[in-house]
Amino acid sequence: MRKGILMVISGPAGAGKGTLADMLLRRDGGFAFSVSATTRAPRPSEVDGVHYHFLTEGAFARMEAEGDFLETATVHGHRYGTPLKPVMQMLNEGRDLLLDIDSQGARSVMNRLAECVTVFILPPSMAELERRLRERNTESESEIRRRLQNAYGEIARLGCYRYAVINDNLETAYKHLESIVAAERLNTVRYRPVIT
Amino acid sequence: MRKGILMVISGPAGAGKGTLADMLLRRDGGFAFSVSATTRAPRPSEVDGVHYHFLTEGAFARMEAEGDFLETATVHGHRYGTPLKPVMQMLNEGRDLLLDIDSQGARSVMNRLAECVTVFILPPSMAELERRLRERNTESESEIRRRLQNAYGEIARLGCYRYAVINDNLETAYKHLESIVAAERLNTVRYRPVIT
Repeated sequence: MRKGILMVISGPAGAGKGTLADMLLRRDGGFAFSVSATTRAPRPSEVDGVHYHFLTEGAFARMEAEGDFLETATVHGHRYGTPLKPVMQMLNEGRDLLLDIDSQGARSVMNRLAECVTVFILPPSMAELERRLRERNTESESEIRRRLQNAYGEIARLGCYRYAVINDNLETAYKHLESIVAAERLNTVRYRPVIT
Repeated sequence: MRKGILMVISGPAGAGKGTLADMLLRRDGGFAFSVSATTRAPRPSEVDGVHYHFLTEGAFARMEAEGDFLETATVHGHRYGTPLKPVMQMLNEGRDLLLDIDSQGARSVMNRLAECVTVFILPPSMAELERRLRERNTESESEIRRRLQNAYGEIARLGCYRYAVINDNLETAYKHLESIVAAERLNTVRYRPVIT
């Protein structure tokens, strides 16, 4: 039996990693969804254990101290984390998993699980990245500047990722992602067919 | 610019690696052909430097002693080898190269060039492998027995290869090979896109 792929998709804000990750989860039946833990309050529509594992600050800190997270992040003062145990269980059962996380979380995963498949999504140009960030019309000018600065730093470290995909055309970028998934399903790190 | 892929296709006799390698060379415009050196005499239709570099025993031995071969093999008393310099030159120019070699040669290449992409082609079953070897009707019973024995040994070491492809249906196996090529063209080991 094949072990599951832990696929990590990362890249600068505006490169389109979220959209590509959603497409992969929707179109490829082989991917399971990893439920994150968070200390923020549930929104009315959110169900504990389905959308997130909602934890108190204390419970989150205890799990973190015991190494029970694959990666953690702090966003707007709230803690987020990927619980390690269900991830390992699903991978051992041969389920592929997709994590759409920021570059800091991606590096934590690389350090914890060397077999993870890391994909860095790139914008076709910095001008196009800026255009996409402005088009969202949700961030202030200083926030856009900050995100562009971060993007330069992240792109400089793209060699830490196994694959680089330029998201110029969404369907072309998705096809590249599909090839990566198809190839990694044949990687002998996880797949040793038995011929009798 | 992207560096070229050195793709090594190997597998037991009868698994179909030669057919798959030919399909890739014909259908994928990105692959260049590496001209081997040999000590055997040219056949009437063969052109020196096109089909093979035809060398004397002495010239071959000198090149081997100086480490000028990526891999060598002895078949029916004749020497065969892949000259290293043109391979490195083509890879640096971004040409992808395909080597269809036996498992011994494949291991030499893995040791010399860790970045090579190794693919092991498997038969769907040992019974089918035996059927294919008999169907050729070119080998004696003892030769078929020997090849089947070798196949068991080779398959036991498939973990040395990066990818495993089962050749049950030829077009399906080719699609797998295509995905591997497409993914490896995005591998940051050889490909570092510059975004401006």
